[in-house]
Amino acid sequence: MSIITPFDDTYFMKRAFQEAEVAYDKGEVPIGAVVVVNNQIIARAHNLTETLNDVTAHAEMQAITSAANYLGGKYLIDCTLYVTIEPCQMCAGALFWSQISRIVYGARDERRGCIAMDTKLHPKTMMTGGIMAEEASQLLKRFFIEKRNLN
Amino acid sequence: MSIITPFDDTYFMKRAFQEAEVAYDKGEVPIGAVVVVNNQIIARAHNLTETLNDVTAHAEMQAITSAANYLGGKYLIDCTLYVTIEPCQMCAGALFWSQISRIVYGARDERRGCIAMDTKLHPKTMMTGGIMAEEASQLLKRFFIEKRNLN
Repeated sequence: MSIITPFDDTYFMKRAFQEAEVAYDKGEVPIGAVVVVNNQIIARAHNLTETLNDVTAHAEMQAITSAANYLGGKYLIDCTLYVTIEPCQMCAGALFWSQISRIVYGARDERRGCIAMDTKLHPKTMMTGGIMAEEASQLLKRFFIEKRNLN
Repeated sequence: MSIITPFDDTYFMKRAFQEAEVAYDKGEVPIGAVVVVNNQIIARAHNLTETLNDVTAHAEMQAITSAANYLGGKYLIDCTLYVTIEPCQMCAGALFWSQISRIVYGARDERRGCIAMDTKLHPKTMMTGGIMAEEASQLLKRFFIEKRNLN
């Protein structure tokens, strides 16, 4: 008999998506992230670029800093980052330095994402995408439509 | 009669180099940066990745955050970043989002720098290098030789 575990990629991406919803409620571009090690969430973050007036305050950047703080070391070996939208050059560059084991993103960012921009990942890092892509993409679209209507 | 101004690229790179020396004294990879607008330094920073246990704590990242904080806005339009070593993917990616006008670096980073990594800069950003390259490069070499001898 196998044990049914609730801890799959969708489970953790839902937690990242909840962070994206928090960002949405603050009027931030709705992107969320969590960092997981041994099925435990050790960092949660959402985009705060508007609140902090800081282009570096992407969800992933804060999640990396927070996870390293929790671990007491700067390398995120054996960790997985879940992020609702494919990381940008900056975040993929930070993930490169972190030597993280795995990146799981939701929706692609065809224009500014690290795939289109050809940002290099660390050889130790595997990246997969498409988990809750539709939800992540819809939340982002809704944000930009509402923003356009307000201006 | 022309007025002799002390404010050229070497003047500001010297200030960035002083920051690199502070990093060196702390046992950090010695890289320093300043952000300048209208010949005024509005941010100074040096690498703190070891002290903060945080791969995102590069000199440039902190300088961007600090400059935006000073300006009260996240875009560094009309600003110049001086940094002793060519920015990496992460920092060049952050500079992309900041829409900074100009990046001046000292020495090339042939392996991990944004030129070798082909990181995309913002179309509004101009980048030049080679200011105090020898000093910046020598300080970095000295750091790694001493580190090797200690271990």
